[in-house]
Amino acid sequence: MHLGIDIGGTKTDAVAIDGTGQMLAQFRISTGYGAPGVLDTAEQAVRGMIDRLELDLPDIKSIGIGVPGRVDSAHGRVVHAVNLGVEGLNLGEDLASRLGKQVHVENDVNAAALGAFHLMDANGWPEGGWPITPTPSSLIHSMAYLNLGTGLAAGVVIDGSLWRGSRGTAGEIGHIPVDPNGPVCPCGQVGCLELFASGTALLRQWPSEEQRPAQHLFESAEKGDAEAIHVRNGLLESVASAVRILVLAVDVDLVVIGGGIASVGSPLLEGIRNVLEEWAKHSAFLTSLALAERIRLVPSGVPIAALGAAFAGAIGTAKAEATVRVA
Amino acid sequence: MHLGIDIGGTKTDAVAIDGTGQMLAQFRISTGYGAPGVLDTAEQAVRGMIDRLELDLPDIKSIGIGVPGRVDSAHGRVVHAVNLGVEGLNLGEDLASRLGKQVHVENDVNAAALGAFHLMDANGWPEGGWPITPTPSSLIHSMAYLNLGTGLAAGVVIDGSLWRGSRGTAGEIGHIPVDPNGPVCPCGQVGCLELFASGTALLRQWPSEEQRPAQHLFESAEKGDAEAIHVRNGLLESVASAVRILVLAVDVDLVVIGGGIASVGSPLLEGIRNVLEEWAKHSAFLTSLALAERIRLVPSGVPIAALGAAFAGAIGTAKAEATVRVA
Repeated sequence: MHLGIDIGGTKTDAVAIDGTGQMLAQFRISTGYGAPGVLDTAEQAVRGMIDRLELDLPDIKSIGIGVPGRVDSAHGRVVHAVNLGVEGLNLGEDLASRLGKQVHVENDVNAAALGAFHLMDANGWPEGGWPITPTPSSLIHSMAYLNLGTGLAAGVVIDGSLWRGSRGTAGEIGHIPVDPNGPVCPCGQVGCLELFASGTALLRQWPSEEQRPAQHLFESAEKGDAEAIHVRNGLLESVASAVRILVLAVDVDLVVIGGGIASVGSPLLEGIRNVLEEWAKHSAFLTSLALAERIRLVPSGVPIAALGAAFAGAIGTAKAEATVRVA
Repeated sequence: MHLGIDIGGTKTDAVAIDGTGQMLAQFRISTGYGAPGVLDTAEQAVRGMIDRLELDLPDIKSIGIGVPGRVDSAHGRVVHAVNLGVEGLNLGEDLASRLGKQVHVENDVNAAALGAFHLMDANGWPEGGWPITPTPSSLIHSMAYLNLGTGLAAGVVIDGSLWRGSRGTAGEIGHIPVDPNGPVCPCGQVGCLELFASGTALLRQWPSEEQRPAQHLFESAEKGDAEAIHVRNGLLESVASAVRILVLAVDVDLVVIGGGIASVGSPLLEGIRNVLEEWAKHSAFLTSLALAERIRLVPSGVPIAALGAAFAGAIGTAKAEATVRVA
C-alpha cells in the first residue's frame, strides 16, 4: 500500500494505490494555512487514509507528498510556498517524526508529471490500472507535464525518471520572456510566458465572478462574444507556445496538459491543436516536429498530482532501501 | 585507441584519444561536398589517423563521427545536412562497410556537448587528461553546450548521458520565437532566437569582409563605434536569453558556450555575464537561479566536437558490446 498526498492552496487530495498501481481509495480535505497548518493537514490526510482503509501504519509501504513551492526532495524541505503561507518547512523530517515513518516530498508539478508519465501510454489513458515501473514495451520514454494553474510551469520526465534539474527548477518555462513589449511580471522580468498562459493571465484579460472562469470564457467565445474569442485565441496561442518551447528545448515524446484551465476539456485541447497545425502550415521545420500529435489532456477529476506523489514515494522509498542494502 | 572525427562545412577535425581520454594526435583536412564527398572525407580522416599513429585497424577500439544535420544515431543515418550538400546518407553503415569496423554517428552539436561534459569540471578545464566516464565525485551532472555557429543550437547532457530527445531535436532552442515583431526566419516562423544570436545574425547586423567578423565587431565596440556597441549589446542580450531558456527549461548545472563566435573569448564571456548580472538586479527570481555563475566558454583551439565524437564512439561501442554479451 502506497499513500500519495497532494497539498493544494485550498484543498488537499489523498490517494492510496496498491503495488500494481491500482487506486484503492481517494478523498479530499481542506488545507490548513502556514507551516503548522500544512504539517497538520499532511498528518490528517495520512491518518485519515489509514482509518478509512482499516489499516495500521506498518501496512503502509511508502508515503509521498506533493507540495507547491521550491522543494529539495533529498531533504524533504519546502521553501517559498507562497499560496500556503509557508516560507520554509522541513515537511519530510517533521512529518516523519510525527508518524515514525519515512516520507518523500516532491514539488506538486513534478509529482503530477510523474503521475502523468505512469498513467499515460502512447494512445491515451489505460482502461484499468497502470504499472508503477514503466514496462520496457512502453512507447513513451519522456514527457513534460504542463500545468496551467495560477501560474504556468512544467515537470519533466526523461528516460523514465523525473528530471528535477540542478536546483529543482527544471520546467520553469513560465518565466521565459516571449514579448519585449509585454507587461511587467511579478518576477521582475518583462513579457514572461506566464503572463499570457495561466489562470492569472486569464482573469486579467477576462475578469469574471464565475466559479469556473475558463469554462465561461470558452462558452462565451463559442456563443460569438468577440472579446471572449480574442482572449481565448490569445490564451490558446500562448499555451501552444509553451508546448513548442518544451519540445524544442527537451524534445519530449508527449506534453500532457493539466491544471485548473485543463478542466475546459476538449475545446482547449482541440484549440491548442488547431494553433499548432496552423503554425505547421507555414513552417516545414515545425511540421517535422509534429507538435499537434504530441499533446494530451489530463482527464477531468483524475487526482494526477496525488497519484504522482504516491509513485514518487514508492520510487523514493525503494531507492532509499536499495542504498541501505548496499551500504 | 578511440578515433573522433568532426565533419564541418569546410574543415574536418580528426583526433585520437587513449583509454584515459588523453589526446594523442590531432589534424585537420578539407571536407568534400555531397554525400560521396563526405563519405570519402570520413574514410580519409580515419585512414590518415591510422597512418599517422602507425597503427592497424584492429588497434582502433571505436570510431565516432560528428556531423551537422538531423542524425539518427541508432542507425548511423544523417539527413538535411544542408551545408554539406547531403540530403540523406547512411554514413555509419557505408563507412563501416568500407572499413570493416563499426562506426558511431552523432549530431555535431551533441558530440560537442558530450565533449564539453567530459572535458569540463566544475571550475574549468582540467590541466591534464580527463576520464571517459564521469567520476562519481564529479560536481557536474548536467550540461548544455550552446553552439553559436551559423545558427544557434544546443546539445543537452542529463545525468551524465547525452539526451537527444524523442526525435533527435532536443536543444533546438534557436527556433523559439522571442519577439513577435522580429524578422521572418527561414524556418517560416517569426522572431526566432537564432535571428538575434548567431553568426548569420551578426553578419546581417554588422556586414563585414573581415576573416573574423565577431572579433572585428567586439574590437570596434571596444574602440567606441556606436553602431558596433549597439549590435554587440544586442548579441550579448540574445545569447544571455539562450542561457536563460536552457536553465529555465532544463536547469542544467552549466551552460558551455562554443562555436565560431566563442573564439572572441573573454570579452564575450564577460559581456554575457554582465547582462545576466544586470537582469538579476531587477529579479529576485533570476538572482536565485545564479545564471552568471553557470556559464563557461570553450577555450579557443580545443577540437571539442571531434573529442566528443571520440567519446560518443567509445560509449556507443561499449554499449553495443554489452548488448551482444547479454544477448
